[in-house]
Amino acid sequence: MKNKQLTIIKIGGNVIDNSENLHQFLLDFTALPGDKILVHGGGKIATELGESLGIEAKMVEGRRITDIETLRIVTMVYAGLINKNMVAQLQAKGSNAIGLSGADGNVIKAKKRPVSTKTYGPEAGPMAGAVIDYGFVGDLDENSVSSSTLDSLLKAGLVPVLCAITHDGNTQLLNTNADTIASSVAVAMSGLYETHLVYCFEKKGVLKDVNDNTSVVREIKADEFEGLKADGTVQGGMIPKLHNAFEAIKKGVSAVYIGKADELAELANGTFGTKMLK
Amino acid sequence: MKNKQLTIIKIGGNVIDNSENLHQFLLDFTALPGDKILVHGGGKIATELGESLGIEAKMVEGRRITDIETLRIVTMVYAGLINKNMVAQLQAKGSNAIGLSGADGNVIKAKKRPVSTKTYGPEAGPMAGAVIDYGFVGDLDENSVSSSTLDSLLKAGLVPVLCAITHDGNTQLLNTNADTIASSVAVAMSGLYETHLVYCFEKKGVLKDVNDNTSVVREIKADEFEGLKADGTVQGGMIPKLHNAFEAIKKGVSAVYIGKADELAELANGTFGTKMLK
Repeated sequence: MKNKQLTIIKIGGNVIDNSENLHQFLLDFTALPGDKILVHGGGKIATELGESLGIEAKMVEGRRITDIETLRIVTMVYAGLINKNMVAQLQAKGSNAIGLSGADGNVIKAKKRPVSTKTYGPEAGPMAGAVIDYGFVGDLDENSVSSSTLDSLLKAGLVPVLCAITHDGNTQLLNTNADTIASSVAVAMSGLYETHLVYCFEKKGVLKDVNDNTSVVREIKADEFEGLKADGTVQGGMIPKLHNAFEAIKKGVSAVYIGKADELAELANGTFGTKMLK
Repeated sequence: MKNKQLTIIKIGGNVIDNSENLHQFLLDFTALPGDKILVHGGGKIATELGESLGIEAKMVEGRRITDIETLRIVTMVYAGLINKNMVAQLQAKGSNAIGLSGADGNVIKAKKRPVSTKTYGPEAGPMAGAVIDYGFVGDLDENSVSSSTLDSLLKAGLVPVLCAITHDGNTQLLNTNADTIASSVAVAMSGLYETHLVYCFEKKGVLKDVNDNTSVVREIKADEFEGLKADGTVQGGMIPKLHNAFEAIKKGVSAVYIGKADELAELANGTFGTKMLK
């Protein structure tokens, strides 16, 4: 019986890296009614620490490789520095927050991304034949999230705050995309709760005109998505974001909201930003 | 009604800094029957990271000052790197571990140690009149530990793994002595459980002759402690350790065990090491 509502909120660098934004966001998060789970990404601090330690970021096709030194840094920064400071701030504001990596209580078990070889052919381009190893990156599947443990924590009056570090169940910590964690948690918890997923990002929502902040598309239904892609309203980096949102809805999430963190209350109740639904 | 037994085990650098020792300890810890809480200190990694970042350790009277840079480092290393790797290892070994700082679930709220002034007089020595500020160090009192939240986690089948980072309830993280955390947790939980406290350290127990590892004192009762101090059996750094142990017993802990981590099962059931009791 799904009688209770649960809101899963994801924030990234544009909130975490600015202490004033973060303070205001955490106040708004605390004021939000009902059960909640917060998921946070990394931000600039990990990159800065890596630079201070003289560890060079290794990139392949614009994506950062998580080698063992990078994994150590993101574990320290995401699960330690950012997560614990965020939890201490939430506690001071009245949220009984509990910070977690995926290893804690085995809440998120991931699979290390396999090493892949770019096949030859026109799409492979100059990378043809190259072996691509993203390193200690964890991918999720439908069995990754332990909804029963998260439910126990919520029932104990706690507010889980998840960082983007997971584990493979065999001692290895892994770096996992925070957007993916948020949607996987939302899908898994939708078996127990009426689940709403809120993505905070740098824009006010899906924009009809990318240069006009007032052109927010207020609502998109699943069957309208293809049309919006075809007419160019949804393009570029928004396509995978919205694809993931509709996948989550297809798998049981009631609604997905996307917009700016500084309008959290309105974003989470659907009066600002873009609301995606069945 | 205290019908269940709870064992609180504290480990320090001599276990954490050696991956082989740590692996064996975590196996033994997992095999230990009954409800358990693990408390861990820091080890060398924080010092090494500080050196890599060019942050000098500041000492006053042989004690390290936790300035803001040091607090950042210990938060990253204790709550992030060490805690999450330990949790991932415990998960792989079959313990449903959950790593916590004192801020998480508000399990340990500390008070920042006040800045003190060394009074003039013979004991103050060359420090007379000096202002001593240990920085972001947190001290505990009888209300610091939230036994109800720890109890909720235990009842959910989780094994709390506490690092030595606490908070003040007003957004500030604090560095706290891991021995103190272990005894405060044991005392607070003794209202709900029959509580046993195990300190793992580098020796086999309290030694009659500090140079003879076979001279372990098997059992010390509270009323024998003064006599053992007077005859020199207990001396130096062992005096405050044992003082704290008997304080914990006075406040409700059933027994305190001290000895080597590599004999954990025997140490925790009182067949090896030194057992202190009422």
